[in-house]
Amino acid sequence: MNRDALKRAAALRAIEEIEDGMVLGLGSGSTAEFAVEALGKRVAQGLEIVAIPTSERTAALARRLGVRISSFAEHRRLDLTIDGADEVERGTLDLIKGKGGALLREKIVAAASARLVIVVDSGKLVDRLGERSPVPVEVTAFGWQATAFALEKLGSIPRLRTVASGEPFLTDGGNLILDCDFGPIDDAAALEARIATTVGAIESGLFVGRTSAVVMASEEGVAMLKGGPA
Amino acid sequence: MNRDALKRAAALRAIEEIEDGMVLGLGSGSTAEFAVEALGKRVAQGLEIVAIPTSERTAALARRLGVRISSFAEHRRLDLTIDGADEVERGTLDLIKGKGGALLREKIVAAASARLVIVVDSGKLVDRLGERSPVPVEVTAFGWQATAFALEKLGSIPRLRTVASGEPFLTDGGNLILDCDFGPIDDAAALEARIATTVGAIESGLFVGRTSAVVMASEEGVAMLKGGPA
Repeated sequence: MNRDALKRAAALRAIEEIEDGMVLGLGSGSTAEFAVEALGKRVAQGLEIVAIPTSERTAALARRLGVRISSFAEHRRLDLTIDGADEVERGTLDLIKGKGGALLREKIVAAASARLVIVVDSGKLVDRLGERSPVPVEVTAFGWQATAFALEKLGSIPRLRTVASGEPFLTDGGNLILDCDFGPIDDAAALEARIATTVGAIESGLFVGRTSAVVMASEEGVAMLKGGPA
Repeated sequence: MNRDALKRAAALRAIEEIEDGMVLGLGSGSTAEFAVEALGKRVAQGLEIVAIPTSERTAALARRLGVRISSFAEHRRLDLTIDGADEVERGTLDLIKGKGGALLREKIVAAASARLVIVVDSGKLVDRLGERSPVPVEVTAFGWQATAFALEKLGSIPRLRTVASGEPFLTDGGNLILDCDFGPIDDAAALEARIATTVGAIESGLFVGRTSAVVMASEEGVAMLKGGPA
């Protein structure tokens, strides 16, 4: 199976968690989009849900598939969010997210959700977060150079994310992203808090203690991993 | 003396701290503007400094007065920032700021400064932060209702700041402000950290452990208060 087939298989398993009447959070990125497509089919079959998307792109896809879009003006709490991840730590199920640039909205939606189900192919599993991916940190454009300096002092090599033209990448909220290479991370909870208290840093792509379950597809099939200490 | 005369007297004392060659941070609000005016006079007399302003309004005023404007692209560290405050706690010199809506940029500039000198009239002094002012919290527009709910669970009554028309107030960065009434605050450092780790909250107006000195004007004259435990 190719990678897309694996992602699609995992997405199908994840949407089995959805029940009538739920308020859903919809993640962003290729894997989350497979879940939205599968959700669209269930909605066409009569499933009654409303969804809050984490990006304009996911919102457009959901709308096209007939999924009813809602917002935080109507719902402060969500029942379930389905999203992808860039790295999933074995055992803890802690995450690095944000490669697609939607980490702030994804984290707001995850934080407001009773459950967060992550859909990945097995290539995303790591022994320690930071092994392969930098930690994306969304920062205020004003003074980003000073914020980068502060993140450097936390032990990372920060790099301003750019688009093909060389211009800075801008998030949906008009902010910048610093991809901060920390190498393998010993204490992700402590690091998440240290980044959060860094002035100018809006949010990091570290998702610690937020994952309810991971649906992981590999050549051997689809497995559901549940959280807990490593 | 009226309140403006007090502010002006304190501002004059504060700018005595400025020396040739310094990189300065310039705060926002009426008291900070008196300091910028006094700075403009010293620049006209030959003082050589560059300044990073914390709002468009302060930038315009400084430019008009011939102050050389710089940015974080040239300077990651500042020597001295002069700013106002809404509340100053006796003893600790911890602050509540943000009534003017510039708290994020003010905090970025303060965090990058070796010294932060606060200019106030004696009416701003309180025994405990939160006695009179709510804590302004700059939040992401997306999901602000969920963020307000989380700030409520921290023990506050959050109120969305609006302008005269009833529309939400927008910060220079395009975000919203929730004025969170916590009442008198027991442990400002702990509260600042809890707000910082609240998803959707970008920055709070609590400035804990950042003040180098407070220049305070009262009917009795101008006093310079130095920080330290209460």
